[in-house]
Amino acid sequence: MNTRKYVLSENDMPRQWYNIVADLPTPMLPVLHPGTKQPITPDDLAPIFPMEIIKQEASQERWIDIPEQVLDIYRLWRPAPLYRARNLEKVLDTPAKIYYKYEGVSPAGSHKPNTAVAQAYYNKIEGVKRITTETGAGQWGSALSLACTFFGIECKVYMVRVSFEQKPYRRSMIMNWGASVIPSPSDQTEAGRRILAQNPDTTGSLGIAISEAVEEAVSRDDTKYSLGSVLNHVLLHQTIIGLEAQKQMELAGDYPDIVIGCVGGGSNFGGIAFPFLRDKFQGKKVHAIAVEPHACPTITRGHFAYDFGDTAQMTPLMAMYTLGHSFIPPGIHAGGLRYHGMAPLISHLVREKQIEPRAYHQLEVFEAALMFSRSEGIIPAPESSHAIRGAIDEALKAKAEGTSKTILFNLSGHGHFDMSAYDAFLAGKLQDYALPEEELDKAYSVIQHHPPISA
Amino acid sequence: MNTRKYVLSENDMPRQWYNIVADLPTPMLPVLHPGTKQPITPDDLAPIFPMEIIKQEASQERWIDIPEQVLDIYRLWRPAPLYRARNLEKVLDTPAKIYYKYEGVSPAGSHKPNTAVAQAYYNKIEGVKRITTETGAGQWGSALSLACTFFGIECKVYMVRVSFEQKPYRRSMIMNWGASVIPSPSDQTEAGRRILAQNPDTTGSLGIAISEAVEEAVSRDDTKYSLGSVLNHVLLHQTIIGLEAQKQMELAGDYPDIVIGCVGGGSNFGGIAFPFLRDKFQGKKVHAIAVEPHACPTITRGHFAYDFGDTAQMTPLMAMYTLGHSFIPPGIHAGGLRYHGMAPLISHLVREKQIEPRAYHQLEVFEAALMFSRSEGIIPAPESSHAIRGAIDEALKAKAEGTSKTILFNLSGHGHFDMSAYDAFLAGKLQDYALPEEELDKAYSVIQHHPPISA
Repeated sequence: MNTRKYVLSENDMPRQWYNIVADLPTPMLPVLHPGTKQPITPDDLAPIFPMEIIKQEASQERWIDIPEQVLDIYRLWRPAPLYRARNLEKVLDTPAKIYYKYEGVSPAGSHKPNTAVAQAYYNKIEGVKRITTETGAGQWGSALSLACTFFGIECKVYMVRVSFEQKPYRRSMIMNWGASVIPSPSDQTEAGRRILAQNPDTTGSLGIAISEAVEEAVSRDDTKYSLGSVLNHVLLHQTIIGLEAQKQMELAGDYPDIVIGCVGGGSNFGGIAFPFLRDKFQGKKVHAIAVEPHACPTITRGHFAYDFGDTAQMTPLMAMYTLGHSFIPPGIHAGGLRYHGMAPLISHLVREKQIEPRAYHQLEVFEAALMFSRSEGIIPAPESSHAIRGAIDEALKAKAEGTSKTILFNLSGHGHFDMSAYDAFLAGKLQDYALPEEELDKAYSVIQHHPPISA
Repeated sequence: MNTRKYVLSENDMPRQWYNIVADLPTPMLPVLHPGTKQPITPDDLAPIFPMEIIKQEASQERWIDIPEQVLDIYRLWRPAPLYRARNLEKVLDTPAKIYYKYEGVSPAGSHKPNTAVAQAYYNKIEGVKRITTETGAGQWGSALSLACTFFGIECKVYMVRVSFEQKPYRRSMIMNWGASVIPSPSDQTEAGRRILAQNPDTTGSLGIAISEAVEEAVSRDDTKYSLGSVLNHVLLHQTIIGLEAQKQMELAGDYPDIVIGCVGGGSNFGGIAFPFLRDKFQGKKVHAIAVEPHACPTITRGHFAYDFGDTAQMTPLMAMYTLGHSFIPPGIHAGGLRYHGMAPLISHLVREKQIEPRAYHQLEVFEAALMFSRSEGIIPAPESSHAIRGAIDEALKAKAEGTSKTILFNLSGHGHFDMSAYDAFLAGKLQDYALPEEELDKAYSVIQHHPPISA
């Protein structure tokens, strides 16, 4: 028997997102205003987000209705399929059952449109005409560009310069859907000009690009800002992944012992894991593993502290695992995982030992990716391949122990725009990065004066 | 109301392919042995194809069972969705209804795996260990590589040199799935060496690459050859597209007045159109349009004649529309449509006026592609965008006439590996090609001594 696909009908598509805040065993620390260091208010956020998003960001409601117009666009590619990877199981000769949810079926090729469409919608109904955002490798920028074309909103994307130059095809995709895209740092913002003055040859970073996009939104009345990960409302929108997966696991007559996702800012992991963590809070045995790269070890080697989401220190201060807001990770090919911080929700749950943090090196991740594409067919994104590595390791552990485990992971996107990374891997040109302790200490030292968090 | 998706359950997936040969109003001309000029026998084909494929090539049976193991792999991405493109209709402000079948959901991103999987299967059960093939832009090579990895067959792809160099990412995909790929012409075959000796700087062509792949299959006992278009059995395997579409149109409560596909060798067009042409032969009103590029105008300006499928004149002689087997078309970005010949089945039906042949220029095709991706989200392959142009023109015609028409087209693949073409288009760097009559006459003159066909 080959790999099997479990499909939901459109009628079975979830009509509400799940807000894990309602069920947290312990409360989260408040987000602080960067100036006053006091808990942030809706008014503080009003210049950059529409009010419905601000409400969701602070919501304590367990279930939040997905608007009809958002469902209507979701239906273009959702419900997304869930597969049992029997071919991969065979190759591994494991007693474990491996399932994966596949989010690469969206037009942008990843899970990102799940929140991009929702955010574009809430901006549209509040009359917003323009949205700015940043993008690293381009997954988020392309998703928001797609969402904005559906709603007729102008979209401007600040793209990290090194990706703008080295990953031209996601840039093309963004332009294809009608958004404008410029390399960051740019001369169009104060933050950008300041950084260019200091270092004209900088490759840029996600933290810098966020600063530029936020600055433009704050300084123009017709413009809001949109973020593709990290924040509560973004993870909320992504829970449709896990809610669908729960129904599909039921179709398969199974339930996962282990749920795995890769983490950069945390949105695809939160999306698949939160509905299962809800079960866990109610006593169900399920083990969640968040996988990040050793080259950007936020939850495995970072500190839990108040830090900024961006380099220019414009965003609110969030209590999260962080490597320091000016940390620039080595140039691994999983560009979407190169972020200094981590979603406060996921940081909180890692700190509370509800989620296991794990890191992998680049080469073992690409080995897993190749094994997957040769058994299952789909060529995975380097980011998602971190989750594949995790699933393979858990399946091999089950084999060694002679126990059967049910493993579910999120295949958050395809690798069609990452073939140069595969070329480099097949040619033996990729390398691993072991970050020395001193380098991490130095990066972290920039936030030593932020409000302290007791252990 | 937005664009709607019509999904079949796996249980509704067709379990037989449709063989249009059984229903042709007039008989086709026989395929001839290139040496004897006599009708070809199964024994003639045995060195290059497994016997089951040879039987299908000559079959008169209307319905041919799809083997269970092939269905099992089809289920990884099939049934493929059918959409009603309401967003595009809105942009065009047309009374016409536009439906499209989307084949880009396969791991290789096009319809090609529908036949690649079937061909790999029939080779596997006859004990074949190696398969050779050719590829232009790489759609077919990647599909066969994917199919061979599922069945554990070694695969070698001769890739047209200019594509090998300019389209590195489909090459990467082929390697990712474990096949070997070399630029053609190569020094590994007599045909390749002969052409390199005459012209060391040649860019190669599909006709040359076919010669090399066939030569290697003929000269090795453990190796067979596989072709991705043109032949009867290939078009047979693709009919699952149209058979699914018929069921989905029924779900939508509709039936197409017009069915449109792009044509290079003819396989995706045959796949969607043949089941509807069956209805037409039984009296139903349905108009089929086959769209090709002006830069390779096989059915709009070629001649119906006996010609070879390859440049080195190794294949049987087929009665088809052809530009002459040594014709090398201009370097348009729809690489999959750059073939000198046309499937004998489609050629026959064009000649019998059952199919309308139509040609478009490159720029109008890319305009249509951009309009489509900005309204429907999916970024289409340049090849498939010829069908989009056709559908848009028919919808605009309906608008001008004030009549409602139901249009169905085949979106045979996505354009994720063609972003450089979109970049060139957006930068105003693409051009149209108007081929002078003399150039076509000269190309055609090479076949003046082939067996004549009376008008």
